[in-house]
Amino acid sequence: MSEVILASASPRRRALLNLLGIPHRVVPSGVSEEDNGGESPRERAVRLAVAKARGATRSATSDPLVIGADTLVVRDGEAMGKPRDENEAAVILKKLSGRSHEVVTGLCLLSGERGPVTGVAVSRVVFHPMTEEEIGWYVATGEPMGKAGAYAVQGMGAVFIERIEGSFHNVVGFPVDLFYRLLPEAGFSLRQLRGE
Amino acid sequence: MSEVILASASPRRRALLNLLGIPHRVVPSGVSEEDNGGESPRERAVRLAVAKARGATRSATSDPLVIGADTLVVRDGEAMGKPRDENEAAVILKKLSGRSHEVVTGLCLLSGERGPVTGVAVSRVVFHPMTEEEIGWYVATGEPMGKAGAYAVQGMGAVFIERIEGSFHNVVGFPVDLFYRLLPEAGFSLRQLRGE
Repeated sequence: MSEVILASASPRRRALLNLLGIPHRVVPSGVSEEDNGGESPRERAVRLAVAKARGATRSATSDPLVIGADTLVVRDGEAMGKPRDENEAAVILKKLSGRSHEVVTGLCLLSGERGPVTGVAVSRVVFHPMTEEEIGWYVATGEPMGKAGAYAVQGMGAVFIERIEGSFHNVVGFPVDLFYRLLPEAGFSLRQLRGE
Repeated sequence: MSEVILASASPRRRALLNLLGIPHRVVPSGVSEEDNGGESPRERAVRLAVAKARGATRSATSDPLVIGADTLVVRDGEAMGKPRDENEAAVILKKLSGRSHEVVTGLCLLSGERGPVTGVAVSRVVFHPMTEEEIGWYVATGEPMGKAGAYAVQGMGAVFIERIEGSFHNVVGFPVDLFYRLLPEAGFSLRQLRGE
């Protein structure tokens, strides 16, 4: 059975691999998430997913499957990162309030035998209008910190989300259906990774 | 602080109330989920949500908030219930494979002071085509049992779901944004129910 390495420190991605029943090891690869200029959000998300996966292969044993992922929250072409403090979280939420934005996740599967297999998932997320009071309350819960776009769709942030179009788990940070569909291209299957 | 009663035995609904930080008591009310004839799926889901909430008020202390919910999985006007056995689960999944269906949740908030406050959430779910082997494997995991439509979007079933349009948590069985929006109509607020 191949070792599976998740090149991401995100507890949400880890939880989704656990949901699929895939034993894995976490090896965050510390890739700089800076903008490279001139890239589309899709290109950037895939580039970072590949870079993360490549960065984690160093610590691998023989023939692992390395999974890299990078998620961007994009409004009008502008990528919203993780808020640095509560003030920035409120500014980001004000930008998302009452509008739609895109969540873009690049995925990379890397194994010794083949080149990188990549894909990208895009979901549209529509926010209800948020009052100042709601933004203040939500920021005070602490949930927005550490999340791209300053919200957690899998947390209390759900009350502010009117609708989603696309993969839900992409909005959480790991599009499981895309992952499942890329596995055969990388020479793996879900059953195999689950040890069945 | 008002007591909150969830008139549903669904562990998914319970988990979503916990996610929102709302302490509550579970009082399943054993309402028959039979078709009444001539109803639309929306009408039926709301009727059953109200019946469940009313059924649970009996065990209530003073001035509770009772939450009733009923979720239907509907394809071409046909409601898909919970599979009775593995064979039926496979039949249902074959019907959903490669197609879109609707998930309809009726929600009812009942409190002593006011009449029932109701709402309905509808989400569209698009399934990837599933092979016979995939259906057999998924049924064998046991996950389809006890779930309307024979799948769990919050479980491994996610790998077969191409996209969602609408509320994600509605597909899980409890549309949290609709719940949040109905609360003021019923005379409550999320902060109050969280004990803040």
